[in-house]
Amino acid sequence: MQSTMQDVPLTLSRILAHGATVHGRAQVTTWTGEGRPDRRSFAEIGARAAQLAHALRDLGVEAGEPTGTLMWNNAEHMEAYFAIPCMGAVLHTLNLRLAPEQLVWIVNHAADRVVLVNGSLLPLLAPLLPRMETVEHLVVVGPGDTSLLAGCRPAVHDYETLLAGRPTTYDWPELDERHPAAMCYTSGTTGDPKGVVYSHRSIYLHSMQVNMAESFGLTSRDTSLPIVPMFHVLAWGLPHAAFLAGIGLLLTDRFLQPAAIAEMIETERPTHAAAVPTIWQGLLGELAARERDISSLRAVVIGGSACPPSLMRDFEERHGVTVVQAWGMTETSPLGSIAHPPATVTDPDEAWPYRITQGRFPASVEARLIGPDGDVLPWDGESAGELEVRGPWIAGAYHGGAGAEPVRPDDKFRDGWLRTGDVGTITPDGYLTLTDRAKDVIKSGGEWISSVELENHLMAHPEVAEAAVVAVPDDKWGERPLATVVLRPGATAGFAELREFLALRVARWQLPERWSLLESVPKTSVGKFDKKVLRKRYADGELAVETL
Amino acid sequence: MQSTMQDVPLTLSRILAHGATVHGRAQVTTWTGEGRPDRRSFAEIGARAAQLAHALRDLGVEAGEPTGTLMWNNAEHMEAYFAIPCMGAVLHTLNLRLAPEQLVWIVNHAADRVVLVNGSLLPLLAPLLPRMETVEHLVVVGPGDTSLLAGCRPAVHDYETLLAGRPTTYDWPELDERHPAAMCYTSGTTGDPKGVVYSHRSIYLHSMQVNMAESFGLTSRDTSLPIVPMFHVLAWGLPHAAFLAGIGLLLTDRFLQPAAIAEMIETERPTHAAAVPTIWQGLLGELAARERDISSLRAVVIGGSACPPSLMRDFEERHGVTVVQAWGMTETSPLGSIAHPPATVTDPDEAWPYRITQGRFPASVEARLIGPDGDVLPWDGESAGELEVRGPWIAGAYHGGAGAEPVRPDDKFRDGWLRTGDVGTITPDGYLTLTDRAKDVIKSGGEWISSVELENHLMAHPEVAEAAVVAVPDDKWGERPLATVVLRPGATAGFAELREFLALRVARWQLPERWSLLESVPKTSVGKFDKKVLRKRYADGELAVETL
Repeated sequence: MQSTMQDVPLTLSRILAHGATVHGRAQVTTWTGEGRPDRRSFAEIGARAAQLAHALRDLGVEAGEPTGTLMWNNAEHMEAYFAIPCMGAVLHTLNLRLAPEQLVWIVNHAADRVVLVNGSLLPLLAPLLPRMETVEHLVVVGPGDTSLLAGCRPAVHDYETLLAGRPTTYDWPELDERHPAAMCYTSGTTGDPKGVVYSHRSIYLHSMQVNMAESFGLTSRDTSLPIVPMFHVLAWGLPHAAFLAGIGLLLTDRFLQPAAIAEMIETERPTHAAAVPTIWQGLLGELAARERDISSLRAVVIGGSACPPSLMRDFEERHGVTVVQAWGMTETSPLGSIAHPPATVTDPDEAWPYRITQGRFPASVEARLIGPDGDVLPWDGESAGELEVRGPWIAGAYHGGAGAEPVRPDDKFRDGWLRTGDVGTITPDGYLTLTDRAKDVIKSGGEWISSVELENHLMAHPEVAEAAVVAVPDDKWGERPLATVVLRPGATAGFAELREFLALRVARWQLPERWSLLESVPKTSVGKFDKKVLRKRYADGELAVETL
Repeated sequence: MQSTMQDVPLTLSRILAHGATVHGRAQVTTWTGEGRPDRRSFAEIGARAAQLAHALRDLGVEAGEPTGTLMWNNAEHMEAYFAIPCMGAVLHTLNLRLAPEQLVWIVNHAADRVVLVNGSLLPLLAPLLPRMETVEHLVVVGPGDTSLLAGCRPAVHDYETLLAGRPTTYDWPELDERHPAAMCYTSGTTGDPKGVVYSHRSIYLHSMQVNMAESFGLTSRDTSLPIVPMFHVLAWGLPHAAFLAGIGLLLTDRFLQPAAIAEMIETERPTHAAAVPTIWQGLLGELAARERDISSLRAVVIGGSACPPSLMRDFEERHGVTVVQAWGMTETSPLGSIAHPPATVTDPDEAWPYRITQGRFPASVEARLIGPDGDVLPWDGESAGELEVRGPWIAGAYHGGAGAEPVRPDDKFRDGWLRTGDVGTITPDGYLTLTDRAKDVIKSGGEWISSVELENHLMAHPEVAEAAVVAVPDDKWGERPLATVVLRPGATAGFAELREFLALRVARWQLPERWSLLESVPKTSVGKFDKKVLRKRYADGELAVETL
């Protein structure tokens, strides 16, 4: 017997056509910092995406060809998000927070021939162009100092001029759903960046999952503010999910300062937002200094790194906004798990222990824990192992470079599963708790100490602004924790007091002996604590360390 | 460039494994009519599905083989819903409302070798067995008069005996996502029934869509009561969607009387329910006669046939339950569209015109209207044409019978699109309004008269219980409408009054001249008005017709 179902591929051109018609009146609002935001309907975005595709075709962009975007979150980036994949090319979002040499490496590795760049980012890009060997065309989006491009090798085009007068429809090709659609390089802290190439199928399925009631659960009645950048992991899937269900979008452009975010929430009244913890930390600080009405927010999703529970509580208690923690990574599109409490728990206090986990997996994300000796560990809430995941929007390889086959390094993939590099436990009902990056676990005398647990406890102290704990070599125990701390202005607590504060919360043998005061914790390009830098500073003797 | 995503198939064994672990504590509650419902956790259902698969394998069930179920909505049917597809066989739900000769035809056409049957349905099945040529094994589920099977050809097994002692895990095969998973024959009123064969892929995607916030939007906090039968169109996808997201299920078994439904809602407190209009009509009548607390219901979905707006209003105004209309058919899995009002409409009164449409399509359902001359018509809210749909959970053919290739009759499929046989309009923002079945449209003097519109207006009259309008031949106009009416007890209205009531609402030339009073409108096996029967009764002179 054969299935009698139609064989219709899951492609982004379907999502575009749907969003631009059924939800054609939904809006993309881009903050301009000048009082009057840019507003475009999904129908307009669809028409302009068609114009962009015509323009790119005229620049010679071909099926399967990576096309770079070095852009903030804005309406033109939305146009590129659909035009490039729907015409069969590959949207290659460039992470503008990366070190210049990484950016050059990535453009060369992907072999981008055309790059769309926001005018405001020309000071960043222009000096790198001579080393970006494959780039032939630059399309400048929005105002900027184009004199910086004088004499540069690539041809320079103005975005609006390029689109003007072109047809507002495009005969999008019928693509195989496994055709590449978009790519993003990891901002991994070790080795060269790794290219993850999403397919139409993976983005389509991920977009459906994002909109499932058990995930973000958004509809055309919502407006979402993705503060997470469109240049990293497709802004957690929100731009494509928006067109799937008519969700309004509020985009920050380059205005990421806490005061600007507070203002855009107050005036544009989004119902939903998504960002990494440091953004929320900054917003909370801003709101403490200057009152703003953020009551339109129904829920915010926090992810990208473990969220201090104190931050979640502050947000809810002071501002009445429900904070939902989610876990994912570039290789997982990124939605890997989300922390809604179980249905059986109705008391808010009983919900907290679930809400501060990384949450539960959706059905399409299969998960297992692998112990130090390679065994699959039980979901008993206690056995800690490296998390491995499998599913239709999970990477099974990395881009090998122009013309090369995909690569599967052994430390990243095992038997078709992605090795996440995260260590944690899973309860029998599927709640994941990640305690550490595998490389950040502190191996002390045959036991594991969780650096994240120590950090969370420290950051719950009222005088601590940030805390990062890393493993440092120890003659007796192999490794021991080093606690690095940023204090709030006017703080009076000393290390001894912080250590006693910790002693009430963790086992005595886990207490750090080594302490160091920092001005700020070094961060990666996406705002995570950069522990590699901390370990190096310690090794190089650059930290003032006090031993208790 | 190649996508680097994993190639993981969308199969029901993933949904089963997910539901039975992450949502292992969610419950399936089956009404027993004896005060104490049967309660099973998803984990138990998963374990018993494994036992059933072992048993079926021992009966020789092979990959791709149809396996019949003649069962009510109950926990054992849930077990079959997962065991049969996950082991690679094809769940063939048998519609117990069909005429006996149709049931025999269908079992022979599919070539079912094993049939699971509820004991309570043996009186229906036993007399048909001699003519069901391919059936070798009967598995009797629950109590029943097995003496009816004495001397029957197939071997008879007791379900619980067959499962007892078998392993509670099963090494489910890795299937291609296009492998057939389930089949359902249409209860079409013309010609032989047509077999629709769903694939793992189509059911998986449809389940995700059902759970999207824009569709039913259910989560593990919900309990759904699918009154729509599991023997027809997979109970609108709810059983599989439940395991995807941990949605509790309340199942009616054979207790479909309005009083039983009212009682199970009051005592089990589901948050969601789904049924055809006639079921809701019956429940409303019951609630008018005897007060029941149905306040647990957050929303109910109505589909299967056009819902009289008066019914929706009654439900909401009297009982505070939001009624959502949806459209679909066996060939569309069935979710084709759902009528949530647009985000821009916040006034409940302004929402009504949208809510009484068939609603908007999800992104995965592409739709077009085809005019009488084969042209694609615009979405202008006025041009009426036959609705055609395309998508990954839409049928592109019918089962051809055992060993035969699928068939694609021209009146059902066109260029890869499904011809729905429904006539309607679509607004620029995608709201579908179906006015008639293509064959029920009344072609009067070169114009179309909508039978459904006339019916809805008639049923809004306080003394009308049911009304069905059909086309009858007319010498002058080609066709004219015949209005058949069922009055409420104690009604005093005559046809003249009803005609004047209509005259205030539709154009004069659309008013029926022919009227007939019925005891009840004849219905198909799934509760739709059976207009074929009405037309035949008229043609045979069996109706008392009054001409105004």
